[in-house]
Order: sequence, then C-alpha cells, then structure tokens
Amino acid sequence: MQRSTPSNLLIIYKVSEIGNNMYKLAERLFPICRSITGDGFRQSLHILCEQHPEIQVFEVPSGTQVFDWTIPNEWNIRGGWIKNLQGETIIDFQDCNLHVLGYSLPIHAKVSREELLEHVYTQPDEPVWIPYVTSYYQERWGFCMSQRQKEQLTDAEYEVCIDSTLAPGHLTYGELILPGDTDDEILFSTYLCHPSMANNELSGPCLQTALISYVKSLPVRRYTYRFVFVPETIGAITYLSRNLQTLQQHVKAGFVLSCVGDERTYSMVGTKYEDTLADKVLRNVLHFHYPDYRHYPFLKRASDERQYGSAGVDLPVCAFCRSKYHEYPEYHTSADDMSFISPEGLEGSYEVMTKVIQALEHNRYYRMTCPCEPQLGKRGLYPTISQKGIYDAFRAIQNFTAFADGRNDLIDISNILQIPVDQLVHIKDQLLQEQLLTAE
Amino acid sequence: MQRSTPSNLLIIYKVSEIGNNMYKLAERLFPICRSITGDGFRQSLHILCEQHPEIQVFEVPSGTQVFDWTIPNEWNIRGGWIKNLQGETIIDFQDCNLHVLGYSLPIHAKVSREELLEHVYTQPDEPVWIPYVTSYYQERWGFCMSQRQKEQLTDAEYEVCIDSTLAPGHLTYGELILPGDTDDEILFSTYLCHPSMANNELSGPCLQTALISYVKSLPVRRYTYRFVFVPETIGAITYLSRNLQTLQQHVKAGFVLSCVGDERTYSMVGTKYEDTLADKVLRNVLHFHYPDYRHYPFLKRASDERQYGSAGVDLPVCAFCRSKYHEYPEYHTSADDMSFISPEGLEGSYEVMTKVIQALEHNRYYRMTCPCEPQLGKRGLYPTISQKGIYDAFRAIQNFTAFADGRNDLIDISNILQIPVDQLVHIKDQLLQEQLLTAE
Amino acid sequence: MQRSTPSNLLIIYKVSEIGNNMYKLAERLFPICRSITGDGFRQSLHILCEQHPEIQVFEVPSGTQVFDWTIPNEWNIRGGWIKNLQGETIIDFQDCNLHVLGYSLPIHAKVSREELLEHVYTQPDEPVWIPYVTSYYQERWGFCMSQRQKEQLTDAEYEVCIDSTLAPGHLTYGELILPGDTDDEILFSTYLCHPSMANNELSGPCLQTALISYVKSLPVRRYTYRFVFVPETIGAITYLSRNLQTLQQHVKAGFVLSCVGDERTYSMVGTKYEDTLADKVLRNVLHFHYPDYRHYPFLKRASDERQYGSAGVDLPVCAFCRSKYHEYPEYHTSADDMSFISPEGLEGSYEVMTKVIQALEHNRYYRMTCPCEPQLGKRGLYPTISQKGIYDAFRAIQNFTAFADGRNDLIDISNILQIPVDQLVHIKDQLLQEQLLTAE
Repeated sequence: MQRSTPSNLLIIYKVSEIGNNMYKLAERLFPICRSITGDGFRQSLHILCEQHPEIQVFEVPSGTQVFDWTIPNEWNIRGGWIKNLQGETIIDFQDCNLHVLGYSLPIHAKVSREELLEHVYTQPDEPVWIPYVTSYYQERWGFCMSQRQKEQLTDAEYEVCIDSTLAPGHLTYGELILPGDTDDEILFSTYLCHPSMANNELSGPCLQTALISYVKSLPVRRYTYRFVFVPETIGAITYLSRNLQTLQQHVKAGFVLSCVGDERTYSMVGTKYEDTLADKVLRNVLHFHYPDYRHYPFLKRASDERQYGSAGVDLPVCAFCRSKYHEYPEYHTSADDMSFISPEGLEGSYEVMTKVIQALEHNRYYRMTCPCEPQLGKRGLYPTISQKGIYDAFRAIQNFTAFADGRNDLIDISNILQIPVDQLVHIKDQLLQEQLLTAE
Repeated sequence: MQRSTPSNLLIIYKVSEIGNNMYKLAERLFPICRSITGDGFRQSLHILCEQHPEIQVFEVPSGTQVFDWTIPNEWNIRGGWIKNLQGETIIDFQDCNLHVLGYSLPIHAKVSREELLEHVYTQPDEPVWIPYVTSYYQERWGFCMSQRQKEQLTDAEYEVCIDSTLAPGHLTYGELILPGDTDDEILFSTYLCHPSMANNELSGPCLQTALISYVKSLPVRRYTYRFVFVPETIGAITYLSRNLQTLQQHVKAGFVLSCVGDERTYSMVGTKYEDTLADKVLRNVLHFHYPDYRHYPFLKRASDERQYGSAGVDLPVCAFCRSKYHEYPEYHTSADDMSFISPEGLEGSYEVMTKVIQALEHNRYYRMTCPCEPQLGKRGLYPTISQKGIYDAFRAIQNFTAFADGRNDLIDISNILQIPVDQLVHIKDQLLQEQLLTAE
Repeated sequence: MQRSTPSNLLIIYKVSEIGNNMYKLAERLFPICRSITGDGFRQSLHILCEQHPEIQVFEVPSGTQVFDWTIPNEWNIRGGWIKNLQGETIIDFQDCNLHVLGYSLPIHAKVSREELLEHVYTQPDEPVWIPYVTSYYQERWGFCMSQRQKEQLTDAEYEVCIDSTLAPGHLTYGELILPGDTDDEILFSTYLCHPSMANNELSGPCLQTALISYVKSLPVRRYTYRFVFVPETIGAITYLSRNLQTLQQHVKAGFVLSCVGDERTYSMVGTKYEDTLADKVLRNVLHFHYPDYRHYPFLKRASDERQYGSAGVDLPVCAFCRSKYHEYPEYHTSADDMSFISPEGLEGSYEVMTKVIQALEHNRYYRMTCPCEPQLGKRGLYPTISQKGIYDAFRAIQNFTAFADGRNDLIDISNILQIPVDQLVHIKDQLLQEQLLTAE
C-alpha cells in the first residue's frame, strides 16, 4: 500500500509544480527534530516564513497559564544514544530522532538492563517500526526503539546518554491574517510539533503554506483568512486563550489540516453537531471530488479540532485529512516517512481545499429578480426548438433559477441539484450578468 | 400496453357516466389543431364553455410583456403538405396535424431534397410515430413525420406548402372562479394548447371540466375554487403576471392537471420543498387510492408547475398525472391518440381529485371538548362487553379522539392512523354531533 | 415458555430479597377477587398500606361525574356457581374467581341450556383457559369458563347462582406523594382492579410498592414522586378529574406500570409524539439494559396511558411492561397465574425503574467552567505518557467534557457517547468535584 516511487508509478494524474513544491518543502523540514517547544519548532517555522515573511511569530513564556493548562518548560535536544559497555552504539538519535522520548529529561549513566527496559518504548505489533512517544507533562527519561532492537538488549549493563535540556523558555507559534472585503473569517490551523514524520505532521504545514499562496493570488477576497501554525494541543489552547473572543465573533468556518499527504483516501472529522458552514462546504466538496471519502463524527476527533470544538469554545472547525490520524498503521511511527507521502497526495488535498475556498467565496443566497422562469431561449441559454430529449443540457440552468429563491445558498443548490459548486458558479455568473439574479 | 377496446376488456371497474362524458368531450376536441395562440385554442375553449358558460375568456394582445417574456404573434394554420414533382401527396396536415411544425412560417416552394431534410423532424427510436415539435420563439418552417416517411424522401426535389399565418393577434385563456365560504382558494390549472394528442393534453381539460361540475354540485364549499385553462408556459406566465398577488394571498393548494387519461399508474410532482398543503393532501389520497403511485420531486417538473413553483412565485402547486409527461414513450407523438386514454382512466383521475377536494373541505384542526377518552360505550360507539379481541373495529374512533388534540389536522390524523380521510370524516361527524369535538 | 421453578432453573441471575418480597406480596394478593370498585380492591389496597401507611385512600361516591364518565355502582361478590339438576357443581367461583363475569348482576334461577349459553363466555382458541370478561357499564349476568367446560354443558336445564350486589357505593383509589427538593414530579401509576391474575395485574402494584421503598431510601431527592393506585380506566379518569391541573403543572415524566413480572422481554409504549422526558429516559435505560426491548407506538396503548395521553390531558406518561398486555397469549385468562411471574421477572423490572429514577435524578444540563479541554493528566484522569492505543479508557471523560456545553442533558450525552447514564454519573461527579463542571 506504500506509495511507489514515481518511476514505477503508472501516472494517471499529472502533478503540477504546486504538488512538487509542497513535497520539496516537506523534504527540507523532515530532518529537523521538532517538539511542542524549542528550537526545532522555531527553525521549522522560520523556513515557512521564507515563503511568507508576513507570518507573525509569537513567543509565550513557560509557566504562562492558558485556560486550565500551564505552558511547560522549553525542551531542546542535541543527541542521545545507548551503548554497550564495549562502547558500541546500540541506538542513536542521529539515526532517527524518534529514538528519544519526546520531552525526555537529560541523563548520562550506566544502567542495568532491567532499569533501561523500564525506560524503553516499542510497538510490538509492528516489530521493525520505532514508535513516536512523548511525556510532556510528567518528567521522565526514555528511549523509543523497534521491538526487534529491544529484543537485542541482552547485556547486563548499558551506558545511556540523552543530551537534552528542559528549562524555562517559550512556546512558539505563527499566525498570518490575509484581510478580505469583510471581517468574516475562514480559519486554517495546522501543527508543526512532530519530529521526523511526514504525513503527520509535515503534510499539514506544507499544504497550509501553499494555501497561503493561493489565497494571496485571489483577485478579490470576500473573507478574511487566518492561518495558524501551532504546536498541537497546548499551542491551540494557547492560541485560543489569546484570541477566543475574536475567533468566536468572526470565524465562519475553519479547518484543521493534518495527514494530508498520502494517496489512500480522503477524510473529514465533523463538528460536534455537524451543522456548521465548515461541515457543509467540506462535505459538499468531498462528495463531488471523492464520493467514497470517509466522514468521521466528532467522537473520532484527535487533533486540534478537539480544542476548537470544545465546550465553551465551540468554533465551526472541521478536520480535513487523507488517511486520518489513528486510522493508518504507520501513524506515529518511523514508517510515516517521506515515502508515505507524495506530490500527488499533497496536490489532491490542495485541490480539495482550494475548491472549499472557491465554494465559500461564491457561497451566497441568490434570488431571481423576476417571477416565473426567465426566457432563457432569447438569451441563447435554452433551445428554440421544443422536442423531446433535447432539454437535459439546459436543465441545470432552469433548475438553478427555481431554487434561487432566497432560501438556499450556493452549496444548498449544489446539494439539491447534485451539481458541483464550481459548475454552478458559471451559471450564477451568467444569470448575474443578465441581471436575472441578485446575491444577498 | 395500449388500452384494449372495451369489448376485449375484462371489465373489473364499472365506468360511470362521468368517465364516458369526459372521454366523449375529448373525442370532440381531438381533431382540432391547437397551439399556444390562435383559433384552435379559442374554438376548443368555447366547446368547454358550452358546459360551463361562466368560464371567462381573456384575450391578451401579441407583444404584451409578461414578466421576462413577450406574448408572441398569433399563429393559425389551414393546411400543409409535401408533394413530389409528380403531384403525389407525400404527407398532409389533413391526415395528422402534427405534420406541420408548431408555429411554422408559411411557405410554398420547390425545394431540393437536401433543403427539405433540414426542415424535417422525426423520432428515430420509434420509426412509425410522428413527433410533436414546435418553434414558438424562433421563426422557422418545418414538417414532422415518421422516420419511415423520411426514409422514403428519395426524390431530388419536392413541392412544399404550409398555409399558415403568424401575425399580431392574441393569446387566449379561460378562468372560472366558484366562490366558497372563505376566500381561501384551491387552484386547478390545465393547458389546452396541444394539437391532436389525447393524454397530453386533452385529458387535463376534460378532467378539469368535470371537476367544475363536481365543485358546483357541492352543497357547501369552504374553499373558493379557481379553474384556469391556459396555453402551457406562456399562458401560465401571462396568467401569473396578471394575478400573482391575489394568488399568493389566497391559494392554499393547487394542482396542475396533465396526462390524466391513461390507465398505467398514478403520479404526482411535488413542490420545491414538498411541505405544502397540496403535497400533503395529494400524497395522502394517492397513498390510499393507489399505494404504488409514483412521486416525482420538483426537479422532474415539466409542465406549468414550473411557473407556479418558480422563484418569486412560490405557490403551493403540485402536478397530478397518471403516466407522467416525459415518462411514457407515446408522450409528444402521434401515438398519444384516443386509444391511449379511456373513460376508465379519466374516471380514476376524477376519483382521486374529488377525494382531494373532499379531504380539503373537511381538513381542519380538531380538538376534543373534554379531557380523557370519552365514554364511547354509552353512545353505542364501543362494545359494552370487555373481552380480548373485540376492540379492533372500535379502535379507530378511540385513536381519533387521542390525536384530536389541536395539533393535527384531519390529513395528519389519517397519516398517523393509516385510515383514509373519507373514513375519518364519518367518525369526525359522529363526534361533532355528540359535541365531543370542535373544529378550529 | 412458562417460568421453571427455581429448582429446575439454571440460575444465571441471583435474585435479591427485593424480588422475593415482591413475589410474596403478589402471592398474598392473588386470591382476592378485585374489580374496579368494591371490597376486593379496598382490601388489596389496605394490604399495600401495611408497607406504606402514608398511602392516602380516597373513596368517591357512585354517580359522581368524572369528565365524560359517571362512577358506576359498587360491585361486590360472595360466590357463584352452576349446578346441574342433580345438584352437582359444574363450575364454582370458589375454584376460580374469573368464573363470574365482572360486574355480573345477581341471579339465582333455573335456566334452560339455551338461555345459559347466552350468558357464557369462553376463549375457543385456548380451550382449557378461562377468559377474564367484564361488563361494567351494561347490566348483565354471566359466567366465564373454558371452552372444554362449555362443551360439557349438555343438560337441558341448570341451576345458576351469582351472589353479587351492585349498588351505590364508592370507587376507591390510593395516592402517595413523596416530596423532593423541587415540586417537579415523577408520576407512577398502576391498577389493582383485576381478580386472580398475576402479571396483569398484580405485578404492577407489587413493583410500585417496592419503588416507594426505593424512593424513600434515597438520601436526597430532586423530584417529588407521586404514586397512584387506581382501578383501570375509570380510576385514572377519576384521578385526573380531581388532579388534572396539578399534574399538568408539575409532572415531568410518568410511567404506567403493568405486566412487569414475567421473564420474556421488556417493552414500552411511547407517548403520542414520543418527545417527552418519559420517552427519553425509558428508551435510554432499556437500550442499555436490554437492547432487544420492544418499543410500541401510542397506537398500541391499552392501559391507563390511554387517559394520561388523551387529548386535553397530554401528560408525558409512557407505559412500561415486560410482555406487553394484548401481546402475550396468557393475557386476560386464567393462565396468567402465579407461575407466569417470578421474583427474577419482577426484579428485572425493579432494576429498570430504579435506573430510570437514578437517571432522572442526575439528569441536568451540564456545562464546563473553562474553555478548551481541561488538563486531565494533572488530575490523574488521563495518562501522562502519550502513545498510540492507550487513550481509550480515558476517552469517555474527554468526550463528556466536549458535550458538556450546556446543550445536552445527561441522557443526551449518554445517547451521544453510547455509555449508560450510571457510568456517566461517576465522571460527572469527578468533574463537579474538580470544579470543572456546573449543573444547570
């Protein structure tokens, strides 16, 4: 099921520059060891800022109270290894930065096999993969390794070293606001706090970076767009603690972008009551783009939509994924590497989200200006010969005029007529031009 | 599938005078060549006026602006033919008035085979039927014929003649209003603009004529009834342009009657949101009358419900059919002739629509006058012996009293109890008489 | 299908003292001949009063108008028999009190076989069972017997004797109100008017008597509890005629308890629109307790929920049963005897109804006090290590906090999370203690 390399691949989808650029950005970010705080996150965010220098970077001090939480100390790591007493390296952070438990305390000591094993994390059901494990809010030291590697720890004693620091510092996040004609907002949020894993989570920041370019390129923007790059959970909570009222006032729809780079499927996680504009537009676009997409209820949430949809926050924010976190075996392991994502996979997600943006920009309540059907024939929009069987091509326009009665927005009409929004945009523009339609 | 002649038919349904009269009226109207304007329509409407002289006839001049449309010139036709150069008639309007394209320009000329074929319309999938084709809003001349006939046009040259006129005149329509106790209205609308075709559309005007007699015969009428005979589309638009506000104020339910004379099935086309009294009553009556009836959504509309349900008009008007237009093969061809409809077919439609009228007349919100179940036993409405298994026959009354709580109208109660309205009318009348019930 | 005696039974459910006590109470009440009025009802109610002396007993005179009904004369019976002319007893009330038609007039006469047969009621489809038949509102005399017994009435003449009185007296009912912190009420209603039948209806009064003890034992009560023991139909109507306004003002949910002692299934009869708190809580508890329970719509009602749900009363009252009246063959026959019910059957119903009471007591709208998810880890409610696969046990708390947004009561949350209310009570109490939650 893993992605074939392009040379082996039967190319059925021609990937554009945009897909390739997202993939290249992911390749550049991949080696950096990120966490919810620290220089890895900071360095990664600065790489994104190269493309969009307007991204504002915020630093929030350790110890700051953010709702029910406290920002932890900043964690940084330079290396880590286990050696046997002959000095042979058994595992090394340089080979794979998942080897050190996230937020591990520093240590340099000789430890017995027994003690070491208490600090070792593996994933026995996938014996050659290294799991990604963290301990943000309880101080521990630890190593992650494959089950195979663990089984080879047969010596009585080992030398272990973790060269990390855990000390007051800052939590870092980035924010970019692109203003539109109104202060109604569309929110995009992604997280940049994982070490070397590709789908979860370099795909999200890379897609979001491309979407910023796309939104910048729009000749007009009805909505204001807000893009947020945070560490997961604590970062979203921090961001919300500083912006809750503004977000509740302005955000009309939002999307957490995560795990958007593979080619297996498309998925969304709905909001709590599945009744928001975010649910509506994403469902509509996915329905036409990839009818077999998977819809997960809010009970299956697991990323920052947890915070955006929490009680007391209640923002209209869905999550958008290809293979959803927790649902693909490679999730949170060393197997979620650069071969698991592809330019094509990223580009598919880019298409969905740009269609979402287009649908939102055009989504208004439309109303015909004149009672009864308009005479489409005299405008070249309907055949002048009336004979059985020749209507179908024109039916969409006629149906559009019937439902443009002020009760339906463009997405509603798309759902009723079962025609994608982008095709309706053309009809709507024709009718607007003929002054047969007004937008509300 | 075509209707057998009565002599061959195993009579399982005894048709009454009413069915026969509708069929005879259709037979009389059949030969006339009607169109959306002209003497054919006028003459046909006057035949209906013989039965109901109160029908008011309106004439609206060509060129009148009606919403987005303009009333076209009046079209009249005396004849038309194609002859070969030996003077032999190939096809002739006298044989079948579908042979001339509706609204065809006059012509009398020798034309090459190639030129003629550009003006010939056929229906290749049914090679012996002549299709019904029109060109109301683009000036053309043309002939319709069977595919077989077209294949025999092998000469190099033909003489063609269409003796028609297309000149300023009028659009004609008829209207009859039968006042009731309130000015809440029930609307019936049908069209009379088709040449010699029987189901579509002589069945509609014939049924409507019979319904006028039925409504006249009612001893009391809660509703005011409005009956409209128009040319399709342009006629409905013209009528709406002159009566929109009145209709929007008063019409509580309306029905377009079309294709109501065959015996194959029953159908209805719902309103846009399927939430009107018209949808509710027609659905209820059809459900009990013919449970396998076909329900079409508004997206499948094709007759004047298009205008009545258009944005900005939004009247509660369904279409009622037996085999729905566009859904039976004979539709808009010479095969839709007098053998396709029958007195039985028309009478079945008459029964449905008179049940609809009855249901509407009795449809009120009912409320019991006394809390708890009434003591039905002392009124002879319930058994005085209480033993297992003897309740069922009385259960309907008891259930009626439970749901007569002011929240349900009679049709709602029918839907809940799954008992046809006409059976509930009897129960309701008993309870009203016992002063156990009030109507709201 | 009848209940095995405990010695034969593979005990999979250990019945408690409570189940045994209910069964013993039923055994004591069983021999008494009850009817809708008279000493049998009075005596039975006084036996219940031994356990709960606070039950108030009301006596309403014959002839009293109660809504559309009149309280009938009081009926009492001492005996009844049929003998042949040789003086041999054919059937005797002493053997089974179902033998005399309920509310039978007194008679002592020699009658011909023909005349006798006009006064004999049987149930031919179950030829050895004696049916239960009554004639409350039409004066008659009569005997009930098995079809077999009837077939043996071959003599020409018989002596018949019914030693009953039907004379002005009273209708008796009992009521107990246990006040709570609010005057919002939960209503339980059952009937005590059937002669020797066990499931219908000694099981209801026995369960209700046990529930009174349970409610008394609650350390705190948010709701006020009202327990009503009436004769069926006329008793419920009498009770409503005297308490309608109070009930409409205060009752938030009510339950008719009937046929609750067998072991076959569980059932409920919904209210008219199935939208009340009673429907909601009973559905929720049954769903988790016995997922295959049967839900009957209001159209299948047949006990006092008929009156509580009647037009103009419209109280939120469901019926709760195991095998529902009218749905089990033994219903209203001599086969509904003490072997048809069991301590286990009664105890199962007791469990359901005490869960209903618990769910109602805890059922509030809850709201988190702090935006975003709370930090459950620092309170020991969430793991401090973040690794795939270890979250599930903690997920319920997290999900609870998401839906505790003020829009859902505890039963809603149970339905959304698919976790029984009693498990959520624990979570809710923890969060309340942590001051993360408020109740509204």
